[in-house]
Amino acid sequence: MSVVTVEVGLGDRAYEILIGPGLIARGGELIQQRLPKARCAIVTDGNVAAAHLEPLVESLTAVGNAPAVITLPAGEKTKSFSSLETVVDQIIAARLERGDAVIALGGGVIGDLTGFAAGIVRRGMNFVQMPTSMLAQVDSSVGGKTGINSPRGKNLIGVFHQPKLVLADTAALDTLPLREFRAGYAEVAKYGLIDRPDFFAWLEQNWQEVFSGGAARIEAIAQSCRAKADVVARDEFETGDRALLNLGHTFGHALEAATAYDGARLVHGEGVAIGMALAHRFSARLNLASPDDAARVEAHLRAVGLPWRMSDIPGDLPDAEALFNYITQDKKVTRGALTFILTRGLGQSFIAKDVPASEVISFLKEQRQG
Amino acid sequence: MSVVTVEVGLGDRAYEILIGPGLIARGGELIQQRLPKARCAIVTDGNVAAAHLEPLVESLTAVGNAPAVITLPAGEKTKSFSSLETVVDQIIAARLERGDAVIALGGGVIGDLTGFAAGIVRRGMNFVQMPTSMLAQVDSSVGGKTGINSPRGKNLIGVFHQPKLVLADTAALDTLPLREFRAGYAEVAKYGLIDRPDFFAWLEQNWQEVFSGGAARIEAIAQSCRAKADVVARDEFETGDRALLNLGHTFGHALEAATAYDGARLVHGEGVAIGMALAHRFSARLNLASPDDAARVEAHLRAVGLPWRMSDIPGDLPDAEALFNYITQDKKVTRGALTFILTRGLGQSFIAKDVPASEVISFLKEQRQG
Ligand SMILES: NC(=O)c1ccc[n+]([C@@H]2O[C@H](COP(=O)([O-])OP(=O)(O)OC[C@H]3O[C@@H](n4cnc5c(N)ncnc54)[C@H](O)[C@@H]3O)[C@@H](O)[C@H]2O)c1
Ligand SMILES: NC(=O)c1ccc[n+]([C@@H]2O[C@H](COP(=O)([O-])OP(=O)(O)OC[C@H]3O[C@@H](n4cnc5c(N)ncnc54)[C@H](O)[C@@H]3O)[C@@H](O)[C@H]2O)c1
Ligand SMILES: [Zn+2]
Ligand SMILES: [Zn+2]
Repeated sequence: MSVVTVEVGLGDRAYEILIGPGLIARGGELIQQRLPKARCAIVTDGNVAAAHLEPLVESLTAVGNAPAVITLPAGEKTKSFSSLETVVDQIIAARLERGDAVIALGGGVIGDLTGFAAGIVRRGMNFVQMPTSMLAQVDSSVGGKTGINSPRGKNLIGVFHQPKLVLADTAALDTLPLREFRAGYAEVAKYGLIDRPDFFAWLEQNWQEVFSGGAARIEAIAQSCRAKADVVARDEFETGDRALLNLGHTFGHALEAATAYDGARLVHGEGVAIGMALAHRFSARLNLASPDDAARVEAHLRAVGLPWRMSDIPGDLPDAEALFNYITQDKKVTRGALTFILTRGLGQSFIAKDVPASEVISFLKEQRQG
Repeated sequence: MSVVTVEVGLGDRAYEILIGPGLIARGGELIQQRLPKARCAIVTDGNVAAAHLEPLVESLTAVGNAPAVITLPAGEKTKSFSSLETVVDQIIAARLERGDAVIALGGGVIGDLTGFAAGIVRRGMNFVQMPTSMLAQVDSSVGGKTGINSPRGKNLIGVFHQPKLVLADTAALDTLPLREFRAGYAEVAKYGLIDRPDFFAWLEQNWQEVFSGGAARIEAIAQSCRAKADVVARDEFETGDRALLNLGHTFGHALEAATAYDGARLVHGEGVAIGMALAHRFSARLNLASPDDAARVEAHLRAVGLPWRMSDIPGDLPDAEALFNYITQDKKVTRGALTFILTRGLGQSFIAKDVPASEVISFLKEQRQG
């Protein structure tokens, strides 16, 4: 299987995403080609280190570039100020300069934290993403959004800091727990639902091969990266179009918050899956799209084993009013109206700026019962 | 006395610096003109709050924009991770959004810390500088460098984040301790010595009026801001020319480190003053410039009451070898050579990339005795 390259077109900050099996073990050579003199530090988490650190360290050492290694506990809690301080301190302790490189080897948590640290040490160092989770390969490693969580809300603190290179080793996903793989797949389906109906149809046919790890996996990841890179190139700093990437995320975030970010009940991609199904169902209810499209989305999510309705979440959920309050913590309600990503049909999502709060609440009531 | 405007030409990040007396009390109106809908938070320190907070709060409140206020302890220690976390948390707690504004009211410490916080909350909020120290008005508030210190070195952590507006209230400097005023003045003289010999000659004639606070003070600050803005517009991200601003800073930083950043012995601008005199003397020793220029620089620094030689620092200094080690902590020694800002004569500074370490050491030996 060959390696696919996706270009992220951002002028003098443009970079390549390489997608294919075995890229971690080629990290040394691939980084040295692009950043010939850079010394390196790797930031990773315990799970990923156990499965994938050794080949990367060996390949860097083989090109005469023995890296510093910083290993953090796995999990969302690591996206904190205190981990940021640790990573920053360790990068400085390794005496890396602005032209050296910090490598994130891990999922979205490690990528977001490490990119932020690389963005602020010496006001911006070289940064390389080596995403090892499905979610990180198709979403968080592309686009330069980095950051940590505040006790007052997720992802509120960070910078835009584009990587110099992204190496997505598609074979590394084989050690990922299936549930995490599936959660990342929700974001893959999302790109189809935003504006690529053909891609969605292709996924309906080929998802099993994506899961099992053949050429279709590389293809699905490459298509996802292209889709995200397109949006990012149009709107690097999220002042407009980039909001389309939040399809499914308004409902999804509210459900994550309502389950207290308890990963045992709901992980992010699962929230997004339910959120996308709800966004389609809500669009149908508002007579924007056909209920058949919503049914088709639900059927695909169900087929791959993702949750698609609120009752799929184990344990009790708060009532509709409380769910609505979680939504409004995320966004402003201006004169009784909210901004949502809705759809006019499969692959025809748009930014709706005047969704009446009352409609949202009655929709949530109906769904809570269903 | 009228207000002078200096434009910082940075394309879509361009902004104005207003310089004149009474601008703090006009803050509300001036900010509202530029950021009509922005809600505000003010970050300041105890000393500055006591002298200047009230008129600013009043003027914001008068335009219907009552601000949140975050007051920190005065002093360099405030440029830390823990203060950063506090400021970030308080900005989020005040529920400010990306389009709202964070105002730094204070010296360089408050400006650097606050700019960094504004740069990372929601990946970049509007930022307004209201510098109240001489150093901040002529140097740190211009150019978008923000940051905090690491236990392993000063200013190692931060971002480039340009303000939307700088309001330099020249009357606010009247409450500044004279020693701080003088230290900031060293950076004013620096702009003359870099590449504006006529400005240096003007300062030799007019420095007393700059200190006493007439039109000459506004003029000196405006010239300094223009000088810095020129360099920044040429090299926003410090990959070349911006290094000229480090004239006097290599020796100066070594002296600050050698006195353990003990402000009772040496504050930053004083280190810069001695450093500039040394850079001129060293250039003469290397036969790059005439010793008369060094003597002229020394005479002016002495006249305004700044220290200009190592023996002006109270207490013992380490020996030449130890001083040299402090220099190399700051910068790489590549094959026995260092980069310094040297001069070919008054106002003719340049970046010298191949200064032999041996010359630096013997120069330091000679100066330690002198
Ligand atoms: N920056 C962005 O644009 C962006 C976009 C979407 C999501 N995110 C962020 O991404 C994060 C979620 O990312 P995630 O789902 O990758 O979480 P994660 O990094 O916590 O990874 C999920 C789990 O899988 C483990 N893991 C990762 N790769 C593995 C592998 N190859 N083998 C075995 N275990 C492996 C991790 O240790 C972790 O336990 C969230 O913090 C979210 O906010 C960021
Ligand atoms: N960002 C940059 O480009 C840049 C450039 C140069 C220096 N700096 C940084 O600036 C900092 C030094 O700035 P500084 O000298 O302003 O230090 P500072 O902010 O500590 O101010 C010096 C002292 O003066 C007090 N003060 C300030 N304004 C006052 C006023 N009007 N009345 C009474 N007291 C007042 C402060 O409370 C403090 O005690 C350093 O941290 C340095 O690294 C940054
Ligand atoms: Zn997501
Ligand atoms: Zn300085």
